[in-house]
Amino acid sequence: MSTFGKLFRVTTYGESHCASVGAIIDGCPPGLPLAPEDVQVQLSRRRPGQSNLTTPRNEKDLVQLQSGLEHGVTLGTPIGLLVKNEDQRPHDYSETDLYPRPSHADYTYLEKYGVKASSGGGRSSARETIGRVAAGAIAEKYLKLAFGIEVVAFVSSVGKIHLPSHVAPPSLASDKDADNDDVTDALSEEFRNLLSTITREQVDAHPTRCPHHETAERMTLVRSISYVGMSSQYIVINREMLISVVSLQRIIRAKDKQDSIGGTVTCVIRNVPSGLGEPVFDKFEAALAHAMLSIPATKSFEIGSGFRGTEVPGSKHNDPFVQKTNGSLGTKTNWSGGVQGGITNGEDIYFRIGFKSPATISQPQETVQYDGTPGVLAARGRHDPCVVPRAVPIVEAMAAIVVLDQLLIQNARKTAASLLPPITTLPPTMVMPPKETLVSK
Amino acid sequence: MSTFGKLFRVTTYGESHCASVGAIIDGCPPGLPLAPEDVQVQLSRRRPGQSNLTTPRNEKDLVQLQSGLEHGVTLGTPIGLLVKNEDQRPHDYSETDLYPRPSHADYTYLEKYGVKASSGGGRSSARETIGRVAAGAIAEKYLKLAFGIEVVAFVSSVGKIHLPSHVAPPSLASDKDADNDDVTDALSEEFRNLLSTITREQVDAHPTRCPHHETAERMTLVRSISYVGMSSQYIVINREMLISVVSLQRIIRAKDKQDSIGGTVTCVIRNVPSGLGEPVFDKFEAALAHAMLSIPATKSFEIGSGFRGTEVPGSKHNDPFVQKTNGSLGTKTNWSGGVQGGITNGEDIYFRIGFKSPATISQPQETVQYDGTPGVLAARGRHDPCVVPRAVPIVEAMAAIVVLDQLLIQNARKTAASLLPPITTLPPTMVMPPKETLVSK
Amino acid sequence: MSTFGKLFRVTTYGESHCASVGAIIDGCPPGLPLAPEDVQVQLSRRRPGQSNLTTPRNEKDLVQLQSGLEHGVTLGTPIGLLVKNEDQRPHDYSETDLYPRPSHADYTYLEKYGVKASSGGGRSSARETIGRVAAGAIAEKYLKLAFGIEVVAFVSSVGKIHLPSHVAPPSLASDKDADNDDVTDALSEEFRNLLSTITREQVDAHPTRCPHHETAERMTLVRSISYVGMSSQYIVINREMLISVVSLQRIIRAKDKQDSIGGTVTCVIRNVPSGLGEPVFDKFEAALAHAMLSIPATKSFEIGSGFRGTEVPGSKHNDPFVQKTNGSLGTKTNWSGGVQGGITNGEDIYFRIGFKSPATISQPQETVQYDGTPGVLAARGRHDPCVVPRAVPIVEAMAAIVVLDQLLIQNARKTAASLLPPITTLPPTMVMPPKETLVSK
Amino acid sequence: MSTFGKLFRVTTYGESHCASVGAIIDGCPPGLPLAPEDVQVQLSRRRPGQSNLTTPRNEKDLVQLQSGLEHGVTLGTPIGLLVKNEDQRPHDYSETDLYPRPSHADYTYLEKYGVKASSGGGRSSARETIGRVAAGAIAEKYLKLAFGIEVVAFVSSVGKIHLPSHVAPPSLASDKDADNDDVTDALSEEFRNLLSTITREQVDAHPTRCPHHETAERMTLVRSISYVGMSSQYIVINREMLISVVSLQRIIRAKDKQDSIGGTVTCVIRNVPSGLGEPVFDKFEAALAHAMLSIPATKSFEIGSGFRGTEVPGSKHNDPFVQKTNGSLGTKTNWSGGVQGGITNGEDIYFRIGFKSPATISQPQETVQYDGTPGVLAARGRHDPCVVPRAVPIVEAMAAIVVLDQLLIQNARKTAASLLPPITTLPPTMVMPPKETLVSK
Repeated sequence: MSTFGKLFRVTTYGESHCASVGAIIDGCPPGLPLAPEDVQVQLSRRRPGQSNLTTPRNEKDLVQLQSGLEHGVTLGTPIGLLVKNEDQRPHDYSETDLYPRPSHADYTYLEKYGVKASSGGGRSSARETIGRVAAGAIAEKYLKLAFGIEVVAFVSSVGKIHLPSHVAPPSLASDKDADNDDVTDALSEEFRNLLSTITREQVDAHPTRCPHHETAERMTLVRSISYVGMSSQYIVINREMLISVVSLQRIIRAKDKQDSIGGTVTCVIRNVPSGLGEPVFDKFEAALAHAMLSIPATKSFEIGSGFRGTEVPGSKHNDPFVQKTNGSLGTKTNWSGGVQGGITNGEDIYFRIGFKSPATISQPQETVQYDGTPGVLAARGRHDPCVVPRAVPIVEAMAAIVVLDQLLIQNARKTAASLLPPITTLPPTMVMPPKETLVSK
Repeated sequence: MSTFGKLFRVTTYGESHCASVGAIIDGCPPGLPLAPEDVQVQLSRRRPGQSNLTTPRNEKDLVQLQSGLEHGVTLGTPIGLLVKNEDQRPHDYSETDLYPRPSHADYTYLEKYGVKASSGGGRSSARETIGRVAAGAIAEKYLKLAFGIEVVAFVSSVGKIHLPSHVAPPSLASDKDADNDDVTDALSEEFRNLLSTITREQVDAHPTRCPHHETAERMTLVRSISYVGMSSQYIVINREMLISVVSLQRIIRAKDKQDSIGGTVTCVIRNVPSGLGEPVFDKFEAALAHAMLSIPATKSFEIGSGFRGTEVPGSKHNDPFVQKTNGSLGTKTNWSGGVQGGITNGEDIYFRIGFKSPATISQPQETVQYDGTPGVLAARGRHDPCVVPRAVPIVEAMAAIVVLDQLLIQNARKTAASLLPPITTLPPTMVMPPKETLVSK
Repeated sequence: MSTFGKLFRVTTYGESHCASVGAIIDGCPPGLPLAPEDVQVQLSRRRPGQSNLTTPRNEKDLVQLQSGLEHGVTLGTPIGLLVKNEDQRPHDYSETDLYPRPSHADYTYLEKYGVKASSGGGRSSARETIGRVAAGAIAEKYLKLAFGIEVVAFVSSVGKIHLPSHVAPPSLASDKDADNDDVTDALSEEFRNLLSTITREQVDAHPTRCPHHETAERMTLVRSISYVGMSSQYIVINREMLISVVSLQRIIRAKDKQDSIGGTVTCVIRNVPSGLGEPVFDKFEAALAHAMLSIPATKSFEIGSGFRGTEVPGSKHNDPFVQKTNGSLGTKTNWSGGVQGGITNGEDIYFRIGFKSPATISQPQETVQYDGTPGVLAARGRHDPCVVPRAVPIVEAMAAIVVLDQLLIQNARKTAASLLPPITTLPPTMVMPPKETLVSK
Repeated sequence: MSTFGKLFRVTTYGESHCASVGAIIDGCPPGLPLAPEDVQVQLSRRRPGQSNLTTPRNEKDLVQLQSGLEHGVTLGTPIGLLVKNEDQRPHDYSETDLYPRPSHADYTYLEKYGVKASSGGGRSSARETIGRVAAGAIAEKYLKLAFGIEVVAFVSSVGKIHLPSHVAPPSLASDKDADNDDVTDALSEEFRNLLSTITREQVDAHPTRCPHHETAERMTLVRSISYVGMSSQYIVINREMLISVVSLQRIIRAKDKQDSIGGTVTCVIRNVPSGLGEPVFDKFEAALAHAMLSIPATKSFEIGSGFRGTEVPGSKHNDPFVQKTNGSLGTKTNWSGGVQGGITNGEDIYFRIGFKSPATISQPQETVQYDGTPGVLAARGRHDPCVVPRAVPIVEAMAAIVVLDQLLIQNARKTAASLLPPITTLPPTMVMPPKETLVSK
């Protein structure tokens, strides 16, 4: 329903034509320094109308924290928050209301609830995600302060334009290599480096939120020459090297055609302690997949080697253990994506989510009305031709919520176990050598 | 943790070296005819040792129903069930216990719990899935009887060998087509036909559980000639047309090399009523992704057009509505995979899951011991070189559990709404025309 | 934590010194006519400052509905709502902050969270109940419209002053009758009549919310003569007959002494269909007890015969069945309080809750500071000398929430069972004769 | 439904005529030494047929642990367990099946599920409690080892026979004292002593499980003279001093009359750390009330001063703080029962539960059949005339489950908070002085 999480719990309300959207965040650890800005920064990365970054900031989507903190410190009690909807009137009915918009949620919401909201798709509205982004920002603040955990998402493809293969997440090979088990480029060193170093600043350096380090200078150049938000007057210098610009161009091309295009977002979570994830139904990746597929417009999820990994023999896909400089174990490769047996192993967690092309397009579409009458649905409203750049903070938010929730649950168990007398009846290899009892950095 | 579902709830217990594995299924509708055979048939499809289908059946994994039914009818009370573990002794410790097996769950279970079970990976054992398969079989029985719902999963790839593209689920295109929006083969008529007609009998006709109708005759031929279970003496006639056999060959090749290989399972759910799925966090596909990623060895999930759909422009990806012969609305295409805005729309629901190559291989592996000492981990035990054929009933089970759980929740709402007086204050287009108040066929 | 309910779910936020208090109500059936007044009426019964009913209404605690409805009809999506706190500044620290107030939540909140809110007791503030009362009002609206269910609570005792025994709920007898099994007055006809007819108007006719029909006229008289809110100038005419007035006097006496006093609230729920309550852990009375003991200041709960029933032999305590005029079964007596085996039987559900004397009193109290220094805690603030009159709508709210939640769950099951083919393998006495498949009036 | 708890979770199955009853206990901390005897001892205190303590023990209700431990140590994975039903055949139908037994669950189970189990009341059977008692024994083992927590329940009344007032829990005074606020005997020193010292050995010293220290010698005498199990040949020496014997006599009297009688159980939990209980809906007492009212035949619950406390003015009811010898704060009195604002304060937690007279009696009862035909229901089977002695271990079990579940949740929060940097922005009185970060002894 509208609540996510077991110990760190987020409950959201609101659709696009009501008074406000908001959330109650329950289970935030007490004693966390928290200011509205901590939340606002991610809300602003999510809000519409960011396409020309030089535009003076218009203060939309301002969060109002209602409870759960005093003097800038969380109390441990629920944090209520809301963001006003600027235009909250139910819309005027028109002929377009006779049509369920294709691949939108109009039809299914009516089938489910028997009542149709002005917005048609009710809670499938992207505005619903405001509450999640706010909750995620709070979770992140805790994770950063207590564990140094970092969550960074970025756009890894728009339409058919992907990050170049040498800095790409593993992607599905074609049939032609069916007899060849060699997998040389699948998890490149460059990609692992990208995962381990990428920052939000780097991601936000380009409007597409697709980072590619070598293109930094040219991007700046391109923008200074010709970026005017709505046009497509780019000078494309090199497809492979200017992938972000090309991606943006791809979006603008969709826009010019009154069409839309999908894409993928890749996310990395760094410094997560080992031991998170609840066997068997709430494995770490299961909770993560649940979280990601609850974001509007998502159709797919893969962690670590994902679909690509199904093609790699075990002898190559297995991640051998190595001893790290701090004495603990790590893995040499990381096909597992930081999770083994549903439990985190301390390595970088990375995953990729596919977002379909937005259903709302301005082209006329041949379809039928609710009563079956055939007709042509004409355009209505303005919409994003591609949602992936704005999806970046939403993905980060849901990731942070999952990590904090699983961390709290594991803390409960680990603390409980640490209070028992030492186990003496098991062979030494069956018991973890005594170390810090707490999950910590 | 170990419970899945909200109203139809499955709780499982057991690992590979204890007395039994089992489950409690809570919330099964009362009045359902149920016999042990209903459960056994799927357990037998799941159990190990099926590779040569002509072998006399050895009666392993016999289910013992404990409660919740009398005279062959469910009472509505919890159904307890168990399957004995044949060899339940904790294993003898040996040198291999000093090593966490690469990409297995040994290391993470020890990190999580601080105690190591004999089996190493504890509940990550495939035996844990017995409880799920039993629960799924019960859910299916209800769904079939009350709604005519059918759940059929099949193997869609092994390693790099996929169903031929003209009968395949959409797969990710390569970069070379980046400027070409044409998507001609992505959701073929043949694939939709496969989805709408495939039966378990067809799936089980070949040991790989990979169906391809045109190859039926040749498959029989091949088997009668040379299939001897452990060998790889196939006569491969045609790669494209004999895909299942090739897949099997791929598995045997892995086995011969003491290696393993992954694959994908595709599943279709037919005749699901519209309106299922709980916005916003428990969207139908979110619950499904959660369920699927909780199956051991899974790394990826996609529904409908999945990752492929991210490359298709909205104008082609949108599913226009059409009126069906029974008067209700359907969609002309089905890129959505039966779900829009997180809610089922009545079309076939199809999705695909990626299973990584099994971590347990017989080849020696260079790795380190728990204490960091480098060494070579030698072989131990016998294991499946490829899990996807046995994963088929597990995928079906988790799918059935999700559908029944969501169905019960939607029933609660729909029945509640049906008891209210008609809405008179909304424009007619905003209210569903009165029809059956119940979710039904 | 801060969420109650499984399918009808209420999540609240807010304490007394923050910007607002509020709630998200998830799972409200769609199509329910709902206006802010439906909620406001119960909030106004709950708010402080009602003691002199002739005072012009000051518009405190105005609810702001944020989402989940359009054109006065619920959409099935979450209903967000809030009530502003009038004085939302954290308080100025003073010497009293050095003391944990005896029997208040200051000490335990600090022990739990390690951070102390301005209000001391954080969420133990009575203002938190605003969200519940609002949610309860919405639940009630549905229950009334769909089932004719009525929920009425009233004050049944203040201090040692109880409803006269002939119209009283069963109370605990003294030891002196230990050998006498006769129980003649325990569940009087008058009490059953009171339960089956009492209305909120009757309850609200007196400021104590203690109804006693025969005293209506005298109450009016007394009030017109002398009720001036803060004084205790009552003319007490007859203790037994003027119980409400006496109760009020008891409260005023407590106030005059800068002391406080507790009391009990009795609640009846009428017209609840049979079959609600989820064995075994969520029996109807277990859910109800949970709900009631979550209200601040409650210490006890009893349903039906309660503690008194422990003294009555089974032969007298059993409720024989009778056939009602509509053909269905009812019970002759109702010691069970409408619940048998944890499941409602269609009879009136009645229960009683004990509220302790408010901890906040103006008398100086000898106690110690947080650091152990002994001292005298002087008065701070103004507080209710007795909370039971204001607790009435809170009890009603939690009762309505429990009923609707359990109703939705049972609807899910009953609808599911109704879609199965008839049971033919059981003896006829083992199957319920076919009747309406839905839970309905 | 059939699961209780959030992090320490118990799921049970089974009714009286099926193969077995059992449970899955999920979330048990790993590393706990556990033997079948730990569970068996409480199951044996619960099982039927204990009335003559000198009888050679017949080994009924033997628990079979299935999973979750190896070499006598818990693994952290779910513990499956079961107890065989000795006579598991569905019963033969007879005329008594035409009648819903008065105040039993036959009628309501049929109304709820539409199918009637052989046992009539399905899961309302006392055998269902076996799973809880086993789970409780495991929880207790942990609580004892890690925190020294002790849970002891005892019978505090049978019928009208209560513990003498000077060693009694507070009970509801009569109306006659309405104007007298003096409460001298309400929470006697002797009662507090009883709570702080009572052991299970003392409780089990008499078949009624009603402890009264001063009567120890006389009880022995009486038993050696005349206790013959089924007869009522007691020499009653003194009602006040021989209360346990009288209670037993009361039970035997009920049995002789083919009748039944109810009673109350009081329970104390010692050494619980402060800070447990989840505001606002899962207050400690709310969770406890939920747990207790889920036990068959319970109708009432009170914690601390309970109903009695409603009559005591705040000035007397408040528990002033004192500094304990270890430096921490305690309370001088303990009307609160160890819980303030829904959170434990470190004092003894005590509460009382009322059990109604068992519905199954051998006397003929005038009632009606399911179809409304009037008739007389004749006796069937043998049943306990009073359940409270056997309820003692069930109450203890549910209490231990609640404490461990709440402890795990609080551990999660407290550990999380301890990993944050010190709070510097709040006045010192608003922050808990740094002490141990963990909940511990």
